This record gives sequence, structure tokens and C-alpha cells, in this order.
Amino acid sequence: MDDKQPPMPESSPTLGQYLFDCLKAEGITEIFGIPGDYNFSLLDTLERYDGIRFINGRNELGAGYASDGYGRLRGLSALITTFGVGEMSACNAIAGASSEHVPIVHIVGAPKSMDQQAHKLVHHTLLNGDFDVFRQMYGHLCAYAVILTPENAEQEIPAAIRIAKQTRKPVYLMVAIDLVAKPIVRRAVPEKKQGATSKPALEAAVQHISGLLNGTSNVVLLSDVLTLRFGLRDAVQQLALRFNMPAASLMLGKSSFDERHPNYIGVYGGAFGSDQVRNIVESAECVIAVGMIWTDINSAKDTAKLDRLRLVDIQPEFVRVGEAKYEQVMAADLIAALIGTGWTRSGAVPPVTFPYDMISGEPDEPIRAASYYPRFQRMLKDKDIVVVETGTFAYGMSQVRLPAGADYIGQQGWQSIGYATPAAFGACMAAPDRRVLLFTGDGSLQLTVQEISTMLTGGCRPILFILNNSGYTIEKYLNVKTSNQPYNQIPAWHYTQLAEVFGGQAFTAQARTNRELDEAIAAAEQAQTSRLCIIELIVTDPLDAPDYLIRLRKHLERQERLKG
Amino acid sequence: MDDKQPPMPESSPTLGQYLFDCLKAEGITEIFGIPGDYNFSLLDTLERYDGIRFINGRNELGAGYASDGYGRLRGLSALITTFGVGEMSACNAIAGASSEHVPIVHIVGAPKSMDQQAHKLVHHTLLNGDFDVFRQMYGHLCAYAVILTPENAEQEIPAAIRIAKQTRKPVYLMVAIDLVAKPIVRRAVPEKKQGATSKPALEAAVQHISGLLNGTSNVVLLSDVLTLRFGLRDAVQQLALRFNMPAASLMLGKSSFDERHPNYIGVYGGAFGSDQVRNIVESAECVIAVGMIWTDINSAKDTAKLDRLRLVDIQPEFVRVGEAKYEQVMAADLIAALIGTGWTRSGAVPPVTFPYDMISGEPDEPIRAASYYPRFQRMLKDKDIVVVETGTFAYGMSQVRLPAGADYIGQQGWQSIGYATPAAFGACMAAPDRRVLLFTGDGSLQLTVQEISTMLTGGCRPILFILNNSGYTIEKYLNVKTSNQPYNQIPAWHYTQLAEVFGGQAFTAQARTNRELDEAIAAAEQAQTSRLCIIELIVTDPLDAPDYLIRLRKHLERQERLKG
Repeated sequence: MDDKQPPMPESSPTLGQYLFDCLKAEGITEIFGIPGDYNFSLLDTLERYDGIRFINGRNELGAGYASDGYGRLRGLSALITTFGVGEMSACNAIAGASSEHVPIVHIVGAPKSMDQQAHKLVHHTLLNGDFDVFRQMYGHLCAYAVILTPENAEQEIPAAIRIAKQTRKPVYLMVAIDLVAKPIVRRAVPEKKQGATSKPALEAAVQHISGLLNGTSNVVLLSDVLTLRFGLRDAVQQLALRFNMPAASLMLGKSSFDERHPNYIGVYGGAFGSDQVRNIVESAECVIAVGMIWTDINSAKDTAKLDRLRLVDIQPEFVRVGEAKYEQVMAADLIAALIGTGWTRSGAVPPVTFPYDMISGEPDEPIRAASYYPRFQRMLKDKDIVVVETGTFAYGMSQVRLPAGADYIGQQGWQSIGYATPAAFGACMAAPDRRVLLFTGDGSLQLTVQEISTMLTGGCRPILFILNNSGYTIEKYLNVKTSNQPYNQIPAWHYTQLAEVFGGQAFTAQARTNRELDEAIAAAEQAQTSRLCIIELIVTDPLDAPDYLIRLRKHLERQERLKG
Repeated sequence: MDDKQPPMPESSPTLGQYLFDCLKAEGITEIFGIPGDYNFSLLDTLERYDGIRFINGRNELGAGYASDGYGRLRGLSALITTFGVGEMSACNAIAGASSEHVPIVHIVGAPKSMDQQAHKLVHHTLLNGDFDVFRQMYGHLCAYAVILTPENAEQEIPAAIRIAKQTRKPVYLMVAIDLVAKPIVRRAVPEKKQGATSKPALEAAVQHISGLLNGTSNVVLLSDVLTLRFGLRDAVQQLALRFNMPAASLMLGKSSFDERHPNYIGVYGGAFGSDQVRNIVESAECVIAVGMIWTDINSAKDTAKLDRLRLVDIQPEFVRVGEAKYEQVMAADLIAALIGTGWTRSGAVPPVTFPYDMISGEPDEPIRAASYYPRFQRMLKDKDIVVVETGTFAYGMSQVRLPAGADYIGQQGWQSIGYATPAAFGACMAAPDRRVLLFTGDGSLQLTVQEISTMLTGGCRPILFILNNSGYTIEKYLNVKTSNQPYNQIPAWHYTQLAEVFGGQAFTAQARTNRELDEAIAAAEQAQTSRLCIIELIVTDPLDAPDYLIRLRKHLERQERLKG
């Protein structure tokens, strides 16, 4: 979390140049967005700027989601929209980034300062003279929301970036179109103090945790979403290894723990996930959780049980041991100190089986969840980026064992359908040398389908798996009150024609049987070196689903019966 | 603006039933939206409810825009989204409805009340325990934003609808999923007083206006957007006829004055529109404006000049005569009183020519703005609904003379590109017996293209004109600072294949020459009785534009030169 200072030339840069200098210093090489007449000066500056490309999305929601995908892989991303109409279309993407701890610098080009001061009724406003209303709205979603001027740019831009990185939340910067090309006013900038660990608090916490550990060998590690977001992955793997303890991920934290690590046992999903994992976690006398957010998805509808008194809850800037909270304890420092104690668990990590290790299903049988998830697991390669849409895929893919060094991108917290396709585009831009696989459903794809066009324009070559099960299957599963749900039907699109209609070329295949799927995957792996691939999975039973979801459904039905 | 009370059965209806009773009483027969697990109880109630259909959009932005189009024609519309992810995707549509005075009842299904009270970290939240944040955000956009309970439903639902109708603004109703099926608590509801005219204020205003009129015959009427929204169209036509005065529309108010009315002279667009209209309006000694909002588009970048001292500015609930404001004067009452004075202007309405009355361009010449706008004007029929996207079409179509009884739908104030396609779908739903024509550009269409799928599913048969000019031409026009604008490029889609990829059937044609356009229009007019029609206009010069836009561009260049 170092603050990288951009190089300071002798003469003042313009506000726009300075903004891009600061973003470039953070490693940003692409900025997503949509042009609009209030952001021309930003985009014109960016066109002439060396080292950052502007990447056009097809709409602001897509560009926002793409920034989210990019930010997860790169640690920070940026988005440019236009005042009102542009930024209001990105609300869902920014709210999602807030919910999911993804730092996005959202830059909004605004009307001329003179028009703002005169409260003129210009387009893209509510026509009531109020130019601050959208910043106020974004204040609810962002860790920081500020209006830039040449006078405050040198303070506010680094402050916003610092806050975004510290909180892993989006921030909002608005700048009037006429101020972008104005030189910034240089000032002496006071040094900002970084969040630092309090030594006494750290020592007390380590002592307290050691007390819990020294009496048992029944210890387990849970790794979750903030491990990913706060760059704690390596530290957590080390901790599991040195403590010789079994390690599970939570649903939101999938890929925060290397799934080929010898200590990995699977995803803990309460009553819906693996029973082996459940037994290990729930019988532990001490659970060390890193970066955990205890949401409905992580707790598997409250069927997952963590006894707070046995819990060491390591958060990015504090730790809770049982009921005691130790503040100003940075997670990295705490984990290093725990490793430094030399403590280690005795006994081997209990052996487990993973749900999709074995290929099942005869070649000519129709594809089913039970047959295609093992095939996905088999095809994945080290360092793949696996982007998974909210819906049935999110549940099934959570149980697929990832290869080493894989990243898993999904919105398991916010769960906005339509997220994954643009996020996969963002992932392609963030890591052009890695293979990107998208797993999305027909219903979700229809929300943000146009970003496939952006992938084609950008020369991206992901493999897109589209699950055609004729509707919002996940919603049918979750609604146990009624079986008459015409609102969960969707139109039947010809998904394999999408690339063509978007003016691009793709490898396409449809798979109805296991054999067809095997062949499609093999062919796509060849084709993927030169073009985007679309594999449509056509399932016969619209209610076919992975085990995780079937157990979830049974749980909801049981609850409904108890109520009735 | 009567408050229609829904019928009251003896036993209490559920909250959901009561909500739909209230909406049905307002004439709503369709509600747009997208399902989500927090709005199941709303949708399940609606499925069993008689007299209102749920209309699935492909995403929330599209469903929101469709509600807007529907609301403009029906006077009120409704939208159902799910908490967080759904509603946040509709922000732009609701902000636009606020800016453009379209009353939409936005209903949001929220998490269980118990989970809210416990501040649980459930999906679709910011995962911070705050369940009120989105209502607060919508409070900035809506005239009213409230959380419904069985105890307050009987007060709050009618209040919200009343406020929506009175202000012609969207309102926001949130209801927890578990409360929808609970019976409402009946209470004695106090009678609400309607906005009413103050007789002394009305008499004083009429006297003041009469004083201005009695000394001149040089009087002109301007009709604008609030004439449309507040149902003043008939009153305004009457006033023009009885006063025998020339009448112009403003850009935002197009179709608020019947363009085949004998007194109609055209759209007043300052330096960019017709010079004849400009001369008549700017030389008038008294301008009577009805329902005017003086925005940047209406004032044609401040080139339109209205002398406030000569202005009678009739607003829905007050009137300003020169510097004097008379409050509590309802527009309909004032117009009736003015007609009642018996005043009439002497002399004939000055003759004008309309820009696109004459067909131009040889059959084999490439289509150009100068040749296709007259053809659009010729093809329009009485009572057509003409939906026009923000962009070049918005400027050119503003100068097309509409047939009698036509409605013109566009977002000339908020100007969110992507609006028109879903709004055309909403128009089809609102007025299934009328012909709907959409005029959109390639760039705009790409934002919300999936609602063509919804049109196909819904059996709608609009004629879609897609202007393929290889990019955001309007943006290229408006940015006079630089000619290198790669960000205004867009991918080249195959627009005529869209219906097929969406699993539907359409008549399609591409027109490059005037002859091809004539043939395509003739064929579409036949085909339109049985299916949706797509006509792609392929122009050779990406910077071809209507006169209005060329004059606007010249004005911007002149301003830029003056600055430099």
C-alpha cells in the first residue's frame, strides 16, 4: 500500500495530465468508459497521453463491470463516464464494487464550471439547477466523492487514490469539462501517515491466539474475499503450511487459497457444500479466518456454523479473538508474527475427495451438471482466469477444484446478474497473456451481451461457456412458493450467431451430449489461440443443477414447510 | 388529476393486492421489470392478479426506459426491480424520468424485514448492514421515496401516486419480500386537498396579461414539454385558435402543439432552426409560453432569445407575467380564463415553409440527411408514435413536420443515448393499436439493443430506422476541439441480423440510395402489419447531418475561435 508519487515536472501539468500521471503511477495502463460531450476534454487529454489507453465499452454498466474485473486483477482500475446519463448507468457496477471491495476510480466529466455556478438548465441534469446531486448519490456508494479543481487536484487526487487502496472501495472524482486542461496549482503536500500496526496490540493478540492454539491440534484455516482484495494470498498460504493446518475457502473467497496447495480441503458451504469440509470446519476447536465477511452466501443461508468463541477473525486492519478485538493490527503483520511463533499442528491434514474429480456421464448421454462440471475442472490450466456469473454456474463452479495460480472472478456478494461478461472483458484487458474463461447463463448474458462486441473489437480471445437452460433457472430454484413463474422465462436467442452479428469472428459450438462437449472443448482449446470461442451448452432439463443448488433448494423447501 | 380510489372490499387486501389495485385504478394495465429473488412475492401476487400484466425487460435500464415511454403516453407507469442490483441498474432511467417529468412508480422488492432489522449481511447489499442506502439515493431522484409496511400502505401508496401525478416525477416504493402478502391495516384516511386555483390570483394574472395584449397584435405562442406532461395539449390548441396567434413548439415540447394545426409555424430553435420561425418569435411583442423549461437545448445554446418582460410564462401551477409571479394558478384554469376574455389577434397567421416539405435527391444518389428527412415526413401517418433517439436524429427529426395526432417521444432534456429503443418498446405496450416508428443511431442502439428481443417476444411491430454512420456522429459534431477522436468509433454490427439472433422474425432492408430507401419504406409499410421491421440507413459520409446540426457545429466553431 505504498503511495507511489508521480514524477514531478518543473512546470505544472494540467489537471487531466496530473490525474493520469497519478493513475499511471499505480500501474493502470487501461481506462474504461464511454464518451460523452462533458468528458471530451478528459478523453482528448487521454488520447495524447502516453502509457494509458482508453477502452470503449458498449454501455456504462458494461464499462463499469469491466473496470471491476480489471481492478480485481490489477489492484486498481479507472472508469470515465459523462455527467448524469453516463454515471447514472454505472451505479450498479460501482455499488457492486463497493459491496465486493474493488477499488475503482470513477471519473466523471461535468458541465462547464460557469454553467454550474449559474445553475443553468443544461442537458444531462435534472433540470433543476442542481449539479451536486449525482456526487451526493455516489457519496453513498464510494469511500470518497469529491469535485476536482486545479486548486485542489494535487491534494484530492492522491487522497482519493489512497482511500481507494486503503479501503478497497470505489472513489468518485468529478471535474468540469473546462478545468481539465488547466494547469494544477502546486502546493506543499503534507505527508500522509499510513495505517500502521500498534506493537502492543499485535503482541497482545498473538499472545491471546497462542493461548487458544496451545492446547489443541484441531485448528483449521478459512480464507475469504478480503484475503484476495488486500493482497494477503501468499501470507495465508504460508500460514497454512507453517501451521500444518487444513485450509478451506469460503464462497466469496474462492481462489484466495490455492486449490492445489497440499493443505487445501475445499470450499466450506455449510449444509450445501462438501460434508467432509463441513465436518472438519465445524469440529475444529479453533478456526483462523482471514479476510472474512459473514454474508448469507458464505454462511449458506445460516447453515454454516462458526462458534465465535473459537474464532480468530483476522481482518485487514484488526483482529478479533473470541470476543476481544485488537485494533491497529495489520493482517500481514499479524500473520508474520503468528508464523514467527513457530507453532505447528501435529498430524497430517485429513484427506478429502473433491466433488468433481471424477469424469462421469456416457459420451452419448445428454450433458448434465454432474457431467459437465468435472469436464470443466479437467480442462482448466494453471493461471487461468475463471469468470463465473451469478446463477447456477456460481454454485456449481464453486465446487470445481481450480488449478494452481488460477484467479476466480465472480460477484458472490453483490450478485448482479449480467456482471460476468463485461468482467471477463476487463480480465482480458488486465491480463492479456493469460487465458480467460467465462461461465455464464442465458438469462444473465442477455443483460450485458453487447460487451462480447467489445471483446471482439479488442482482439480478446476468451472461451465463453453459455448455459442455455431456457430461463432464470437460479430464480426458479430460489422461489419455492410457486411453480407458476412465467416471469422467469426468457427469449430463446441464437447464441452462437452473436459474434457474427457483432461483426466479428469466433469459434462456435453447441453441445447437447457429453461427447459434443468434449469435442467442443478440444476444438476451442485449439481455436482459442487465434479467436474468441463460444460454446453453448444446451441442457434438456431446465431444472438440472449442481448438487450444491439441489441441497439449497431442499433446505428452502423444508423451511417453507415449517412455516406453513 | 382526480384521485381515483380503488374499490374497497370488506376484508383487507394484502399489501401487494392493494398496491396493484391502486395502480389499476390509474389505468395501468402493464408493469415493466426484471425478476429477482427479493421481488418474487410481488411478481407472484401480480401473476395471480387480474388486469395487470408483468412485462419482462432484458435488463433494468431497458425496463426503466420502457416504463418512461409508456408513462408518457398513459400518464403513469410502474416498474418492479429487485433490491440493490436491480434498482441500481435503473438509476439512469429514473433520473431521466425525473429530468423529463415522467411519473413512474418504481417498486423495489427488498430483503426480509427480519434480516433488515438484524442488519444481516445478505446479498444485493453493500454488505455493511445498511438497508436504507438505496432509498436515500433514490430520494435524490424521486419526488417521494418511502418504505411500505402493512400499517402505512393505505396512506403511503395513494400519497406516492398522488405526488407522482402532481409533480409528474418518479416515486419510489420499497417493500420487504415478506410483507407483500400481509393484509394491509385499514385506517380512516383523511381526505387530501387537490392543488386548486386561487381566484384572486387568477383574476389578477388575467388582468395583467390582458394589459399586455391590448395594445399589440404581435403575439406568439410557444408550447413546451410540460404542456405534454400535464395534459394541456387541447387547451393550448384552443388558445392558439381563439387568439388567432402563430404557434411554435420548443425542442423539448415537440408534438405538444399539433403540427397540422392552421396556426402552427414550426419548432423554434434559435440560430439553428428555421429563420422564419425565429423572426416571428423574436419580433413578437408578447410571447405566451406554456409549460416551458428553458434548457440549453430549448435555448439552442443561448442563441434563442426571449425577452422576459414580454413573456407570459404559464407553468402548471403558477404563471409569471414579466417579473410578476402569480401563484396557485392552475394552467388549465388560466388558459380557460384567457379564452374567456374574448381577446383575439387581428391579421392572418404569417405563412411559413417547413424545411422538409419537398422531396429532394435523385433516386440513385446516396441517401443524405437532406434526402431522407423529407421521406420520413412523407411516410408518417396520423396518430403515429415517433420515437427519436438522442443524437443526429434528434436534431433532424425535430424539423420534420408531424402528422395530426402524432406523439413524439424523445429525451431532449436528459439526453441519455440508448433511451429510445426501450422507450419504443414501452410505447408499443402503451398503445398497441398505434403505429410506432423508432429513429435511432448505430452508436445509441448498441447500448440497449437487447430490448429489440423484448419487442419480438411481445409481438410488437414497430418500424426501426437505424442510422449507420459508423460511430457517435453527434459527439464528433459537438467536439470542435480536436479531430482525432478514436473514442467516437464503434464496432460495425450487422444490424439487419439482430432479429434473427434474438430468435425472432423481422422484415429487414438496407438503404444506401434514395431509391432503396423509398423501396424499403414501401415494403416495410406492407410488412409492418405482420412483423417488426428494421431498415438500416447506410450513409457514405459519416459526417452527413441535418441543417440544424450543421448550424450548431458552425456556432461552436465560431465560439472556439473567439476563445482561441
